[in-house]
Amino acid sequence: MNSEDFRQLGKRTVDYIADYLDTIRDRQVLPEVKPGYLHKLLPKEMPSSPDHWTQILPDIENLIMPGVTHWHSPKFNAFYPTGSSYPSIIGEMLSAAIGCIGFNWMASPACTELEVIVLDWLAKALALPESYLNSSDGPGGGIIQGSASEATLVALLVAKEKTVEHVKKNDPERREADIKGRLVAYASDQSNSSVEKSSLHASITIRLLPSDENGSLRGSTLLEAIEKDIKEGLLPCCVIATLGSTGTCAFDCLDEIGKICNGRNIWLHVDAAYAGSACICPEYRHMLKGVQHADSFDINPHKWLLVNFDCSTMWFKDTTPLINAFSVDRVYLKHGHEKQNILAPDFRHWQIPLGRRFRSLKLWLTLRLYGLSGLQTHIRNQCSLAQYFETLVRNDPLFEIIKPATLGLVCFRAKGEDSFNMELLERLNKNRNLYMVAAHVDGKYVFRYCVCSRLTEASDVESSWSLIANTARLLLKEQEKGAKGLLIRKGQSLSNKKTSNICTTDEHVNITEFIST
Amino acid sequence: MNSEDFRQLGKRTVDYIADYLDTIRDRQVLPEVKPGYLHKLLPKEMPSSPDHWTQILPDIENLIMPGVTHWHSPKFNAFYPTGSSYPSIIGEMLSAAIGCIGFNWMASPACTELEVIVLDWLAKALALPESYLNSSDGPGGGIIQGSASEATLVALLVAKEKTVEHVKKNDPERREADIKGRLVAYASDQSNSSVEKSSLHASITIRLLPSDENGSLRGSTLLEAIEKDIKEGLLPCCVIATLGSTGTCAFDCLDEIGKICNGRNIWLHVDAAYAGSACICPEYRHMLKGVQHADSFDINPHKWLLVNFDCSTMWFKDTTPLINAFSVDRVYLKHGHEKQNILAPDFRHWQIPLGRRFRSLKLWLTLRLYGLSGLQTHIRNQCSLAQYFETLVRNDPLFEIIKPATLGLVCFRAKGEDSFNMELLERLNKNRNLYMVAAHVDGKYVFRYCVCSRLTEASDVESSWSLIANTARLLLKEQEKGAKGLLIRKGQSLSNKKTSNICTTDEHVNITEFIST
Repeated sequence: MNSEDFRQLGKRTVDYIADYLDTIRDRQVLPEVKPGYLHKLLPKEMPSSPDHWTQILPDIENLIMPGVTHWHSPKFNAFYPTGSSYPSIIGEMLSAAIGCIGFNWMASPACTELEVIVLDWLAKALALPESYLNSSDGPGGGIIQGSASEATLVALLVAKEKTVEHVKKNDPERREADIKGRLVAYASDQSNSSVEKSSLHASITIRLLPSDENGSLRGSTLLEAIEKDIKEGLLPCCVIATLGSTGTCAFDCLDEIGKICNGRNIWLHVDAAYAGSACICPEYRHMLKGVQHADSFDINPHKWLLVNFDCSTMWFKDTTPLINAFSVDRVYLKHGHEKQNILAPDFRHWQIPLGRRFRSLKLWLTLRLYGLSGLQTHIRNQCSLAQYFETLVRNDPLFEIIKPATLGLVCFRAKGEDSFNMELLERLNKNRNLYMVAAHVDGKYVFRYCVCSRLTEASDVESSWSLIANTARLLLKEQEKGAKGLLIRKGQSLSNKKTSNICTTDEHVNITEFIST
Repeated sequence: MNSEDFRQLGKRTVDYIADYLDTIRDRQVLPEVKPGYLHKLLPKEMPSSPDHWTQILPDIENLIMPGVTHWHSPKFNAFYPTGSSYPSIIGEMLSAAIGCIGFNWMASPACTELEVIVLDWLAKALALPESYLNSSDGPGGGIIQGSASEATLVALLVAKEKTVEHVKKNDPERREADIKGRLVAYASDQSNSSVEKSSLHASITIRLLPSDENGSLRGSTLLEAIEKDIKEGLLPCCVIATLGSTGTCAFDCLDEIGKICNGRNIWLHVDAAYAGSACICPEYRHMLKGVQHADSFDINPHKWLLVNFDCSTMWFKDTTPLINAFSVDRVYLKHGHEKQNILAPDFRHWQIPLGRRFRSLKLWLTLRLYGLSGLQTHIRNQCSLAQYFETLVRNDPLFEIIKPATLGLVCFRAKGEDSFNMELLERLNKNRNLYMVAAHVDGKYVFRYCVCSRLTEASDVESSWSLIANTARLLLKEQEKGAKGLLIRKGQSLSNKKTSNICTTDEHVNITEFIST
């Protein structure tokens, strides 16, 4: 494929992408395929000689699209949003074309420097403490990680090394293995499954502490757990606080937690993967109360700031422990280049992999082509659509709100038994024109309706709601008619006392087991 | 930015990309900028209202390009190649547009299934053992990781958990922390710096064992180290074998190493990041001798198979220990869905992050639009260009070959003192029309000339060589004229006995320190 072919196919691909997104509502959000569908359509081996490029777009439409779950459809209301926008796609194109591997400054100065600059832009837009800025006088700074999972892992690993160093300072004879074997990290039972997974990767015991009636981890609960562990000779080293849990968008009490961590040499990492983006709007910044206590802070612009995955932005109050722990060229770093590193850090020491793509391009273009005002409009629009959805639910006597609209998420259910709700979600997903996942709140099975697509409009919310309400009535009628499995409708609203969601990802797997086999 | 704007900007971007690559030779490969250059050009905060899209491409050209190191220029001969091709860029565009997060099958069936299929295509093209195939009857399979570093980390982490399980089976009372504190991994002193870094992340002691005169780790060296460690009560758990080291493209003796690992419950991971791709050509498959002993095997199509970073393909002989160790929903997995998992695995359990992009698209399109024959031609062409470069060096009495062309890499130097060679590289990089990095071989400072760009032709090799040879002569003349720092040219060729490269990345940093400040 030469450059002339690319000019042709590239431009057709641009049109294909624009057409896809212009008409994404016309597609079913969930595919109809069964596991193994593609194995039947593709050859068992790669072609021995080149296929022709004119075949590519038809194959995308005919082979790939039937198996795609359309995350950018307004009918996609599962999990949380994944970002995408035209500026970001342009950024991906340019990043792919430049194709540099920016592991240090010279490997492509623009790659490092643009990242330094846009991380500062974003930190300022979120009103994060000055100490997180790359341009601050201190040792803090920000970087793009691949995902919130990687950010959590990096935080756990630094916390581990920092604790080892701290313990050994007071007790130089103590064996490192003994210290590492006694480390404990803490998170809320509402934290994302990736937090637990990262603790497995980091070989650190994690306690998923009970949250309160709002789904928040409280300082008192944490303190009790820490003191118990210390009494047993264990070494608390890290707390992962969640701002905007996956289940119900709950918020840990950062301010309470932070004060406890700061006095005890415990690294505080904040996972604000979804909710953090909202803080570009001043009216949501109260959610960050206590952020000044955090050692590291992560949000996913690839969730809610219209940037394509992968772009998880992580800030550190002090990058020194990170570089000390994970650079494998410490001799070089001792040679006093600190001044240069502020403008041109070697980001490879701040992350798990060695190589890195030019990801700041897509973030830069998105921030520029929306501007702060455009991004604020996007966030506010999605929040108000969630509120509108909540109103529709409240006006229907068959349903109840379990958790009112929090940012873009509403948790609700049909009044009555879990079995009815499970069957209802099964039906809805089978219909394939709406995709929601469930969570468990206070032991009850509830639906999560999340406004995800940037294309979502009020009419989409109405269509989705009609589908839900009508399907519920149809199911109810069937059950009443069939006189079997009669729905016992108690009519009472569930209290919103205690949330304890099972990882929605797993819920989702169970649901899809049904619809896919 | 609406879809009409995107159609316009997208098409202009396609032309910009094609123009960039068509004329990449006309640009200096290394930028002239000093650290902080971009900070002076960009505002301190993001724009409050949207910038106009017509400004984007001029800004890319005027602000970004002056700070780009052009990895796809034929004048880029540093490190190893990073892949890029038009089919791969199209794949990135489509992946960005679909923008799904394929953490499990239902999250986008096509995303998982295409990956399963193309990993099998590639495994077959490399003639890997049947047991690595997703479609085999056994528990093996392949996945796309983000980088070779992540593949190494995954291997180390599985090895750790597997060893703990194994030790506890025989000694159930033994404390996990004690076991984890005694784990040891092994690699050659020629292994990439990312291997050492991954061992830091995994909290596993690593021994970088001395390689032989060919830069190869031998079985006897490994065995001696293992036996010594066992005698001291330590627990050997993992060997990272390198096929194609970063310094000189050296190969560990996989066959010898593999037999030692297999009998001792030691996980064998093969890091063939660069060299592995060559095995799509039958004449290079001898390099894989012993691969049947490996538990996991990784190559980077994003290095040498024309696929854009990130696309590191990793195969496992048995994925069970991986899933056992790192899935956080083990209950679900016990419910007997093994049959389905062959066609539709939940790849999130095989990797560090939870989320994953639709990366198989770019691999698929690249394999299809080149075909096996096209990729073989690419590999063979690059190897023959390296041989051509070697000939040019050999024909010049001022220079000596330190390591003959191995795949796309040639190691050479000017005969005589290191100081002359260091000054020469400094001059060459200052010229900015050639980018090489150095390595240390047998205590001598040598240049690595690697054929990297897919656009490289014989005339590029000749230009680069002319620049090197002429610069050397000029420098020699200056030194002789100046009668200070007179070059003592001994004329004798260095033996190619013992290689011991210092991480080329670090070398590179030192070099760039000079040219950038």
